[in-house]
Parts: sequence; C-alpha cells; structure tokens
Amino acid sequence: MSDLEIRPALLEDLPAIVAMLADDPLGTQRESPDDLIPYTAAFEQLAKDPRQHQVVAVLGNRVVGTLQLTIIAGLSRRGSTRSIIEGVRIHADERGSGLGTRLIEWAIDESRRQNCQLVQLTSDASRTEAHQFYERLGFGASHVGFKMSI
Amino acid sequence: MSDLEIRPALLEDLPAIVAMLADDPLGTQRESPDDLIPYTAAFEQLAKDPRQHQVVAVLGNRVVGTLQLTIIAGLSRRGSTRSIIEGVRIHADERGSGLGTRLIEWAIDESRRQNCQLVQLTSDASRTEAHQFYERLGFGASHVGFKMSI
Repeated sequence: MSDLEIRPALLEDLPAIVAMLADDPLGTQRESPDDLIPYTAAFEQLAKDPRQHQVVAVLGNRVVGTLQLTIIAGLSRRGSTRSIIEGVRIHADERGSGLGTRLIEWAIDESRRQNCQLVQLTSDASRTEAHQFYERLGFGASHVGFKMSI
Repeated sequence: MSDLEIRPALLEDLPAIVAMLADDPLGTQRESPDDLIPYTAAFEQLAKDPRQHQVVAVLGNRVVGTLQLTIIAGLSRRGSTRSIIEGVRIHADERGSGLGTRLIEWAIDESRRQNCQLVQLTSDASRTEAHQFYERLGFGASHVGFKMSI
C-alpha cells in the first residue's frame, strides 16, 4: 500500500464516496446512491467550511476509503479543541488490508496538527468489530452515544 | 421559571460558565476556574464561528445553565446536517427544577430551525442519571462513544 494517498475529497469523488456510504449494513438502509443531489448540496457546505475535512484514500486511481474530520472548539476541558470522526468507510475490496488503520491514523495526526486535545467518534452499538478496531488504535469506549432523529 | 431566558453567551458570562463546568464530578478534575485565559481564547474561537452556539440560561440576573450546540454538515444519511450538544451544565441550586429539560428542548428546537435532521451527544458512561434524562427526552442510546486524548 506504498502508493496510498489521503487527500481532500473533490466533487468528482462524490459517486465513489456515496457508493461506499451505501455499501454497509446500516448505510444500505439510509443512503440513496442513485440520487446524488442531496450529497452534492452537503458537499458544497463542507467545501466552504475550513473546520471540515472530507478526505478520500486513493490507491492507484481508485477511491478506496473516506472519512469526515470536523474540528470543534469548545470551553470544556480548559478550552480544549476536539475533532470528531464521522462516516468512516473502506471499499469492500480493501477491508482487512490495514487501510482503515491508515485512515484513522491520518485523522489523529491531522487533529494534532490542528491543535486538538481530544479525538472522538461514535459507533453504532451493533458494530462490534469496529469497536475492537477503535480500541486497538487507542480509543477508550468511555461514553454512551445518544442520537435523536428530528 | 417563567422568566427563564436562553440566550447566546457573552464574554462577561464566562466566569459563571466555567464555574458550572468545574462544579461536576468529572469537571472538577479537568477544569481550572481560577485561570480563565484558556477559556477566553476558546470563547473567541466560538464567537466567530456561525456554526457554534454557546448559550446560557438566565433566571433573574443569574446564569444558571449552559450548553454548546454545534451544527455539522455531512454526507452520511443523504447529506444530513446534524447538531452536537456538548458541555451541558445546570447550576447546583437549580438541579431537579426542569431547567435541564428546558435547555435540551431549546437545543432540539434550534437544531430544527437550522435544518438539522439529527441531534446527538455523548455522555460519560458513569453519568447514569443523565442517561435516563436523555432517554426520557426521546434520545436513543444507540451508539458507543469513543474518545482519545492526544
């Protein structure tokens, strides 16, 4: 994987990103890869926000992974800045290859570069393999994640 | 509580906010209410970001509650915008009065006004009373929250 590149996502990467979001036990129920209009609107919001980093992992010329890193200032913990990782996806052909580790390590390194003191993410309670993955990388399962659709 | 006001925090509210962050079983170990310098720097970051809403609840002329609401665009869930609630605190004199419910309901309403489709938060695994509180308000404890200090 020596030619792996992790770079900001471009609009032309959007079909590959959405296909990965949808190719997932939970994503298959809530994504619409045949209708990119809502994703394009969201992508434009992300692109103009300097605190948002939607990135892709590229191997050869193929988009094989993605995640969203958001930098959030805050008062808690003596004015700590934290980063939040969302929407981590690895292409089915590349799962188990170490690519997920590379992507998350990139996110941690980028969080340090942006002077964050804390990196956090939530993972659906059903994703038990993902939980072990994050714990191996040094995350602690210290919190309960609450969500409400509105 | 008919004269309760929920409004954007001002710099002059910062001592009261930090005192509430610190008056908490976890906050007492990680906050420094006697040194406001790091909080002031963070407050300035929040004040210039239109996606950040640090608010206070005011009763009479007293600051009796606070939370941070952050609006985050994203690609997942058909380009959903989500909000994240952080740093919820109620003054010790007002706990159990329904003020926490009012503050969280404000955050949910504001999230709707900002076209969010999802509201989320994480709560330390030790805060079992808070978990019941959020479930009563309609949140689902659907996720595991991972954090890493860096």
